[in-house]
Amino acid sequence: MPQLLDFYFDFSSPYGYLASEKIDALAERHGRQVRWRPILLGVVFKQTGAAPLTLVPLKGEYSLHDFARSARFLDVPYAHPANFPLATQHAARACYWLHDQDGETARAFAHSVFRALYVEGRDVSDLDVVLDLAAGHGADRATLAKALAGPALKERLKAEVDSALAKGVFGSPYVVVDGEPFFGVDRLPQLERWLACGGF
Amino acid sequence: MPQLLDFYFDFSSPYGYLASEKIDALAERHGRQVRWRPILLGVVFKQTGAAPLTLVPLKGEYSLHDFARSARFLDVPYAHPANFPLATQHAARACYWLHDQDGETARAFAHSVFRALYVEGRDVSDLDVVLDLAAGHGADRATLAKALAGPALKERLKAEVDSALAKGVFGSPYVVVDGEPFFGVDRLPQLERWLACGGF
Repeated sequence: MPQLLDFYFDFSSPYGYLASEKIDALAERHGRQVRWRPILLGVVFKQTGAAPLTLVPLKGEYSLHDFARSARFLDVPYAHPANFPLATQHAARACYWLHDQDGETARAFAHSVFRALYVEGRDVSDLDVVLDLAAGHGADRATLAKALAGPALKERLKAEVDSALAKGVFGSPYVVVDGEPFFGVDRLPQLERWLACGGF
Repeated sequence: MPQLLDFYFDFSSPYGYLASEKIDALAERHGRQVRWRPILLGVVFKQTGAAPLTLVPLKGEYSLHDFARSARFLDVPYAHPANFPLATQHAARACYWLHDQDGETARAFAHSVFRALYVEGRDVSDLDVVLDLAAGHGADRATLAKALAGPALKERLKAEVDSALAKGVFGSPYVVVDGEPFFGVDRLPQLERWLACGGF
C-alpha cells in the first residue's frame, strides 16, 4: 500500500486553507491518501525566528493581496478574517481527538474549521465555536470539552508539533510524501508531478 | 503601447535566476516587454528584517533542496554556488551602466551573470569576473571599471533600490505589471493568467 501523504498545516494559515481545498483530490488522482496534521506555527516560529506573514514589513501588505488573488487563481472562496492571526490550539487538539476515533470525521471537521474561518468569518479561536463545529460532525460536546481541558490532549498536540519540527516542518502548508518535502500551496504542481512520475 | 513589466531581482537570488530564464518569453507571449531591474536584497532585508533564505533554521536546508528541484521542474540548469549568498553590487551597477547605453546588452549581460553563477559556478561578486562578463558583451573594460569605482553609479543603484522599496518590493524575483505585484518564481503562472486575461 502506498505511503500516506502527511499534510501539515496551521488553521491560522491562509495558504494552508487553500491547500486544504486541493490536497485530497490531488492525492486521490495518484492513488494516495492524506493524513491531516494540524500544527501550531507559533511554536514553530520560535525555532526558526519567523514571524506571521502579515506582520512582516512590506511582505505583510503583499500577503493580504496574494491570499485573495491566490484563492481566485485556485477557484477557492476566500474572505480574510477580521481576527487574524489567531490562536488555533483548541481546533488542532479537537482535530487529533476526533482523528483518534475516526480519520474521516477529523478531516471533515478540519474542512469545517477552515471554511468557518476563511469563508464565514467565524472566530475559530473561540472554544465554543470549536465545540459547535465538532458537534456538527457528531462529537459529544461535553466529552470533547472535558478532553480539551485535560493534559493528555495538550501533550498530544505538543508531541505532534515537536515531531513535525524534528522532520523539518517550518511552515504551513507543508506536505511530506515518501520523505520528499513540499512547502507552500504553490508547490502543489511540483507535488503532483512528483506523484505522477515517482520523483523528477 | 502596453506598459513594460518591471522585473526586480538580486543576482544572488536562485529563484530570481529561475525567473530570469522564463520572464522574457512569458512577457512576449502576451505582447509585453520586460525591464530588468537588479536590486540588493541586503538593503531590502534591513527594512523588512528578513534574512537570506539559506540562513534561516529549517527553511535554509529545505531551500537548498527546493532550488534544485524547482530548477528541474522548470527545466533550467542549476548548480548551487559554493560562494553563497554573495555580494552583487558590482554586477547590479554594471547592469544599470550597460542599460543606460542599450537595454538589450544589459539583458544579455544579466543572463551571463546569472548563468556564470548558477551554471558555471563563477564568483560573480568578483569585480574582475563582472568586467570580463561585460567585456564579453562589447563593453569597454577600462571605462566600465572607472564607472564602477565612481560615485555616480553607486548613487544610481542606491536610487533604484530605494525606488523598489518605495514600490513595496521585498524580495526576489518580484514583478510589477500595470501596478499588480507578483513575488516569487512560483507566481509566474498567476502572472501569465493576469496578462492573458487582463486581471482575474
